[in-house]
Amino acid sequence: MDNPIGVFDSGIGGLTVVKQLMHYLPNENIVYFGDTARVPYGTKSEKLIRQYALEDAAFLDQFGIKMLVVACNSVSAVAIDLLKSTRKMPVLGVIDPGVEAAVQCTAKNKIGVIGTAATINSNAYYKKIVGLNPHIQVLSQPCPLLVSLVEEGWITEQITRLTIEKYLQPLLGDGVDTIILGCTHYPVLKEMIQQVVGEKITLIDSGKETARIVKDMLINLKLTRLDVRPPAVQFYVSDIPFKFDEIGTRFLGRPLADTQRVEFEKFLLKQGKKIYLPLQESN
Amino acid sequence: MDNPIGVFDSGIGGLTVVKQLMHYLPNENIVYFGDTARVPYGTKSEKLIRQYALEDAAFLDQFGIKMLVVACNSVSAVAIDLLKSTRKMPVLGVIDPGVEAAVQCTAKNKIGVIGTAATINSNAYYKKIVGLNPHIQVLSQPCPLLVSLVEEGWITEQITRLTIEKYLQPLLGDGVDTIILGCTHYPVLKEMIQQVVGEKITLIDSGKETARIVKDMLINLKLTRLDVRPPAVQFYVSDIPFKFDEIGTRFLGRPLADTQRVEFEKFLLKQGKKIYLPLQESN
Repeated sequence: MDNPIGVFDSGIGGLTVVKQLMHYLPNENIVYFGDTARVPYGTKSEKLIRQYALEDAAFLDQFGIKMLVVACNSVSAVAIDLLKSTRKMPVLGVIDPGVEAAVQCTAKNKIGVIGTAATINSNAYYKKIVGLNPHIQVLSQPCPLLVSLVEEGWITEQITRLTIEKYLQPLLGDGVDTIILGCTHYPVLKEMIQQVVGEKITLIDSGKETARIVKDMLINLKLTRLDVRPPAVQFYVSDIPFKFDEIGTRFLGRPLADTQRVEFEKFLLKQGKKIYLPLQESN
Repeated sequence: MDNPIGVFDSGIGGLTVVKQLMHYLPNENIVYFGDTARVPYGTKSEKLIRQYALEDAAFLDQFGIKMLVVACNSVSAVAIDLLKSTRKMPVLGVIDPGVEAAVQCTAKNKIGVIGTAATINSNAYYKKIVGLNPHIQVLSQPCPLLVSLVEEGWITEQITRLTIEKYLQPLLGDGVDTIILGCTHYPVLKEMIQQVVGEKITLIDSGKETARIVKDMLINLKLTRLDVRPPAVQFYVSDIPFKFDEIGTRFLGRPLADTQRVEFEKFLLKQGKKIYLPLQESN
């Protein structure tokens, strides 16, 4: 069917997931929303992230999406059940696919997870991993500075290498053999992270694993687009700041075409109180 | 008079300004609002920052403030005229006081300015400085990573020193003798910045200069609080994330007491379209 896959993220880091979706599903229409007006989410409270998640999903609802992909790890960590319970279409976050790949991969039963403060503090990765295999040891490390380093474009700088070393030293000392890149920004640093941890450790790119699962789900649910005309990939953001194109291109791996700025506060104002109800119930 | 001074910032960096206000004006009531739900502003567009500034000021309007202090450099850079034109009370940003101190200080007529991307790209510091003295050369450098380093608490780390060196090298090569710390987060790094640039360069702390000017203005306008009972200092934020107290204490220099979380989106919803009018006019 022709309806698009909806993808949202706290900003434009989720374009690393879109990049993988475009690779594994080159015939699908995609509509992306990045909440660049309120980015980042990963340093904010769980309650606030849940509220923002409902609002972002409400924006994508307008496009008649056939599936909702939450490209943001922080949202996937704290709001995926809320999104599933308030939506009719299939909803997939980036955590489950990353966890499944890591659990299959680890030989020593020791998995490392790196992500934002919100993602790590939620314990979502830990709970998912031990839910699948209680014998696996999980070592987590919040790495908030990596997001800023990627956005600054310091991809090969020595300062970035030192920062990665400082954050990952505890995981390496504990002997993990698999590390989940639990933030959409980290695939941009994958090469340097691999250099720091060595070739024996497998890095799991949640975005890539998510795209694979999305493909399986669309086939199983008979939701694949069959139209032979070229698909449409649309980008919406709530703010277009300085260097937007440069940073976006870094994530997507190709130039960002025709991104539209949404007057997101006015959209929320039109929604009125509707959008707040599920959260009030969850309080 | 007993009405409070209103102070707002994009987050809790503005507490460095409150710290100085409490030092220079120990008898004043203060009400602070930090928009921690949407922090940072410095990486966002000018249009969005202007909209957020109107909303933050509207929140403080509720307290009958006798003066509005904009503790955020990014807002001071792009929205101070808008705030002045839409408010009846005196409005002061952090840029004018910092500029006046720097212009008095420089002997070589070469001033460096460091700040967020939004602050530096606005050219607000440059325009103010050459407006006061067209013979002064202004060298500007956006330093976006410094905010993240302060929030991560890496105040004395080698990585922070290397980052400061990398950012400041161009300014030092050009021979500035005065550098304005054009972001509320930077006073926390003042000691390390001073070590990097050497003792011959004067660092201007905009927060301190702002507090001095606020004191002068209150005296001149006969708005000083005369009550001998202890003053009230109230803190409101739009989100209370992980490590909030730890980070807040770092900025304020003392423990943050009784911070209240505001349901800011609901406040904005109640304001309805009123709050958007001035911005629509300015488009």
